[in-house]
Amino acid sequence: MLSRYLLMKNKAIVIGKGPAGISCAVYLKRYGLDVMVIGRDGGALEKVPSIENYYGYTKISGKELLENGYNQAKNLGIEILTEEVVEIMKEEDFTVLTDQNTYRADFVVLACGTSRNRFFLAEPFSNVSYCATCDGFFYRKKKIGLIGNSTYMAHELSVLENMCKDITVFTNGLSLEVTINESIKVVTDKIQSIIGEERLTAIQTETKEYPVDGLFIALGQASGYTFAKHLGIETKDSKIVVDQNFETNIQGLYAIGDLVGGLLQVSKAVSDGAICATAIQKYFQLNK
Amino acid sequence: MLSRYLLMKNKAIVIGKGPAGISCAVYLKRYGLDVMVIGRDGGALEKVPSIENYYGYTKISGKELLENGYNQAKNLGIEILTEEVVEIMKEEDFTVLTDQNTYRADFVVLACGTSRNRFFLAEPFSNVSYCATCDGFFYRKKKIGLIGNSTYMAHELSVLENMCKDITVFTNGLSLEVTINESIKVVTDKIQSIIGEERLTAIQTETKEYPVDGLFIALGQASGYTFAKHLGIETKDSKIVVDQNFETNIQGLYAIGDLVGGLLQVSKAVSDGAICATAIQKYFQLNK
Repeated sequence: MLSRYLLMKNKAIVIGKGPAGISCAVYLKRYGLDVMVIGRDGGALEKVPSIENYYGYTKISGKELLENGYNQAKNLGIEILTEEVVEIMKEEDFTVLTDQNTYRADFVVLACGTSRNRFFLAEPFSNVSYCATCDGFFYRKKKIGLIGNSTYMAHELSVLENMCKDITVFTNGLSLEVTINESIKVVTDKIQSIIGEERLTAIQTETKEYPVDGLFIALGQASGYTFAKHLGIETKDSKIVVDQNFETNIQGLYAIGDLVGGLLQVSKAVSDGAICATAIQKYFQLNK
Repeated sequence: MLSRYLLMKNKAIVIGKGPAGISCAVYLKRYGLDVMVIGRDGGALEKVPSIENYYGYTKISGKELLENGYNQAKNLGIEILTEEVVEIMKEEDFTVLTDQNTYRADFVVLACGTSRNRFFLAEPFSNVSYCATCDGFFYRKKKIGLIGNSTYMAHELSVLENMCKDITVFTNGLSLEVTINESIKVVTDKIQSIIGEERLTAIQTETKEYPVDGLFIALGQASGYTFAKHLGIETKDSKIVVDQNFETNIQGLYAIGDLVGGLLQVSKAVSDGAICATAIQKYFQLNK
């Protein structure tokens, strides 16, 4: 363990640029750590027309509050990247893969909001996966379905293409947002049901039944729930389980804000960020 | 128990008008509860020249942030009283006594910041009290000392005057901030030591030794620690012990912010207020 501590470069990546993520980054930066924020957008808060219960503001729009947060972070010299994180890998340190680049970090803080990308129809079955990298191997040369329509789906597809023989992408009624290999079949019909007993055997859309050996889910963008599935993070009722320092069961990996449940409010997210950053700083102080 | 619930008037008093108190009041008001805030001042935050780590503000002074909070609360129709709370009493509901008035409430939220009014020199002794109302009776017709120089001391003195024979006020080097009965002796010398074994027997100042049968402490203004002593609230390491809803061991009495420990930061205080208010609202919904 000692070698790990000696190698520690105190570099943190915060995933998510909403209140939890920016608050955490601001504290980390002020504690002297090297911190970078990566996020696609401001999430649900972007669409909130008026906030009246966040201390210090009589009335502010979500968009305006987010802008204030970005400015606050930039003013401290924090780099905020508008990229979409598609994968996080853990070896000695962490590798964060976005739609554009690869980054390394000693600490990763997940602050990417509530997960809305589970596909509940498929959950009763055993041959369903939320992680191509983890489970693609089990479907070598098999016929599989992949549900999704976005950048994140394209990332999962790129992993599966190397292993599986026959892949059908199901957009479940949405339009395909990305360009994919022409050899891949795309079904844009809505999914009506999943056929099977313990293991699923076919996808039933409005118009047709598609037999498959397994199904991968890559809805929307990679979320806390996705990363939990990929990394083996403990979850409970769709929320990431953390200790009082907001650390998950994976050392060096933290989760804050709506991801961990409790009150789904800006004030609680901001506080999570501050407490988590303080815990990371203490950990680093103790082990440097 | 039922009768108590039926009588419940869902009136809350928040003591303290810093970030924790105002955040809590804002949430309570928006949940439809009748809420009043009482506080002498904005506490320690008033003197902070610049805050750069509270999400949403690149840079703001403590005074300005407090002003924003007052305006936010007033905009929602919340009454903020600039009075000093000197006593809280609990029977069926709560009675809150200030230097000017008496109020009643079904819920009380303590948000009055860290206690700085312990007198550690005296703590080893058994005949020392932080509560005239609780313990004055034990010193009937005895000679006692009272440490303090403020409105709160004057309140404790008014209670003791009815019971004790011979009272000496020790300002411990400070000037007397209030007018008190001329018959009361006032010593403005600094206290050097407390004499006694298990029980103290005398106060030793720079110039003289004053024999006493007991000593009351009423330093500064009544604080969380004071109220804890008066009401029998459980404390640990000078912090008020609360559950995950910020409720103390006394039903209907909550404590938030620096009083309960953890990260002593605006962001955490604001979050405490929001979580506590949500718990009170849930409790009220369940029991109305």
